[in-house]
Amino acid sequence: MHYDFFAPPQIHFGWDRFQEAGTLAASLGSRALIISGSRSLETNGVLDELKSLLSRAGISSEHIRTISHEPEVTDVDQVTNILQHHTQGAGDFLIGIGGGSGIDLAKACAAMITNRESETVLDYLEGVGQGLQLKAKPLPLMAIPTTAGTGSEATKNAVISSYAPTFKKSLRSPEMIPDIILCDPKLACSVPPEITARTGMDAITQLLESYISCRAQPIPQALSLQGLKLAIPALPQAVADGNSRTGRESMAHAALLSGIALANSGLGMAHGVAPALGTHCRIPHGLACAVMLPSTLKANRSVCEMQYAEIARHLDPGLSLSDADAADSLIQQIEALNASIGIPATLSELGVTSEQIPTLVADSRGNSMRGNPREISDDELTGILQDLL
Amino acid sequence: MHYDFFAPPQIHFGWDRFQEAGTLAASLGSRALIISGSRSLETNGVLDELKSLLSRAGISSEHIRTISHEPEVTDVDQVTNILQHHTQGAGDFLIGIGGGSGIDLAKACAAMITNRESETVLDYLEGVGQGLQLKAKPLPLMAIPTTAGTGSEATKNAVISSYAPTFKKSLRSPEMIPDIILCDPKLACSVPPEITARTGMDAITQLLESYISCRAQPIPQALSLQGLKLAIPALPQAVADGNSRTGRESMAHAALLSGIALANSGLGMAHGVAPALGTHCRIPHGLACAVMLPSTLKANRSVCEMQYAEIARHLDPGLSLSDADAADSLIQQIEALNASIGIPATLSELGVTSEQIPTLVADSRGNSMRGNPREISDDELTGILQDLL
Ligand SMILES: [Zn+2]
Ligand SMILES: [Zn+2]
Repeated sequence: MHYDFFAPPQIHFGWDRFQEAGTLAASLGSRALIISGSRSLETNGVLDELKSLLSRAGISSEHIRTISHEPEVTDVDQVTNILQHHTQGAGDFLIGIGGGSGIDLAKACAAMITNRESETVLDYLEGVGQGLQLKAKPLPLMAIPTTAGTGSEATKNAVISSYAPTFKKSLRSPEMIPDIILCDPKLACSVPPEITARTGMDAITQLLESYISCRAQPIPQALSLQGLKLAIPALPQAVADGNSRTGRESMAHAALLSGIALANSGLGMAHGVAPALGTHCRIPHGLACAVMLPSTLKANRSVCEMQYAEIARHLDPGLSLSDADAADSLIQQIEALNASIGIPATLSELGVTSEQIPTLVADSRGNSMRGNPREISDDELTGILQDLL
Repeated sequence: MHYDFFAPPQIHFGWDRFQEAGTLAASLGSRALIISGSRSLETNGVLDELKSLLSRAGISSEHIRTISHEPEVTDVDQVTNILQHHTQGAGDFLIGIGGGSGIDLAKACAAMITNRESETVLDYLEGVGQGLQLKAKPLPLMAIPTTAGTGSEATKNAVISSYAPTFKKSLRSPEMIPDIILCDPKLACSVPPEITARTGMDAITQLLESYISCRAQPIPQALSLQGLKLAIPALPQAVADGNSRTGRESMAHAALLSGIALANSGLGMAHGVAPALGTHCRIPHGLACAVMLPSTLKANRSVCEMQYAEIARHLDPGLSLSDADAADSLIQQIEALNASIGIPATLSELGVTSEQIPTLVADSRGNSMRGNPREISDDELTGILQDLL
């Protein structure tokens, strides 16, 4: 038993607790710079409400940027530049509100604004650029997730894309974990069913991959068991009825747990392939994870039977099956879940062609793939992707 | 689902990782003031080793105080005074190394040294004194637990005693959670069997009481399930063989989880009565908890049958019993555990007399008792204590 565990220091969770945004943010400073992650937050009045809640708590605020795609190197560099013109010193802090994209952009900018050895985030990303390390503490940050998915509100990295050249890499440091998480599941009620389905499967993939990862550790595993038990029945509820309070609460909590879990334990093959499917085939992250999850579970079954059985028995304490049958039942549950919420079973339904497979295989070798409990060779991965066409 | 969850931001856990004390502490400052919790840390060379590890990491250090009893108001006030003469400003931080007493003293002093509205901690304690609040951030603190018990390394309070007048009260604030926990289970190898037994039962009591508390919340419950599954088989191992690596690792991890759990979910009747047994009958905290635990589980059985059954099924996934029988099996396991590690079944074996019961009942109404899932009247508590004579 040997681990380093980093946790978000403060989580405030509950239906309609967005109302507390101002009072909670007051401990971070007196001036909030807001980065948001979807146009709808502007149109449905959430951003205006945030500004007024802050103002009532004596916090002035400025809305810096809305981003409606997964953040790219140029987004981080531009927004950091804008922030530099707007920061005034002591008392400044950031608020990231939105899905994974908005929160990741806020996390990256909070770090880049205090780390200026290079003018571009490229030089701080893993595996590309100059490999610079973050040295200075980022600006204080409050994260307010509005979709239940990536768990970005609880992780220590921000995923940054580029299309010329093509990559998806992380800016990573334990200091990047947001200082305060305010998670109000009600904010997700307006997320449409299709996005609810794919972001929810992202969380479920993260809970499962971190549990079986070769870097798995005890606290994240305890959280994953709880997250899966809540999420597997809740996701179809939230997809079917966006206003389902139980569905949204369970998914928001599970997504948050998945963020804590992956930040400490790493992930696996599904998250290894997802960035390549994102950059080369423009498949949204959660959808890519969802389609890859059953194959990932099958590819690791030979070394993870015990863990699958543990999870299956936690999901259904009455289960009286052998380890082998319990493990199979978990894989079947995930396949049935995907089918029930409209996730395609194949990559060809998402437009992937066999010509793309060599590039996908070559670009699947990032940090996540290294967490996979088994070594997956290029040949094996090629076969797995071909079977998914 | 509604919660506020505060977690220790950094946990470093592992056998022999005490060797990393210097490198880990370097992020907190350049000068360590050390408060320790047992004479044996001085005599067995652990303190000298700590100072040399710090020095090799470029950190100067001073050993301020060893405390070998549960900290009292006068201890906190005196040590805070000494610290004030030794602090030099930026770069100073505290290290608390020891059991609950040493770490609680360090936590209280880290807070008191930056909060000087009153010269005595008495005025900041819950329910006694002036009721002052901690306003300034405490000095940075690294906690190094050397016994697996209270989980004080992960909690937001310090328990402070007084004998004239007689009370045991908490200094409490989320800011008091140590910044870094370094947990090396090997450090507990020299803890004698009797203390291993009672501190271990403290952790188990905390895991159970927080799980059923009327302030129970999801993340601590996930941690409690894991902690109990590890601790219940590991404690007899650690008692029987102090060098048992599995025993010590499981207990150190479970104790840490119990601290996170209680800090967020509160406790119950056993911890309600324990401070009174401590101050009036001088019964060590863990021993008091252990003796009170079976009665506490029985007193709450009527409203907690489901939770007991959940725990019992997590401990033994093969269990095919009704809820009622599974709940009973949990209570029986705890009674058997106590018996197997030499915990007395009655309070009279610890010298408690029936004359003391009215005082014990009156002094059991603190913060912990308010977490108990059922209201326990004075009459009922009197009966419970009488039955324990
Ligand atoms: Zn993901
Ligand atoms: Zn205790």
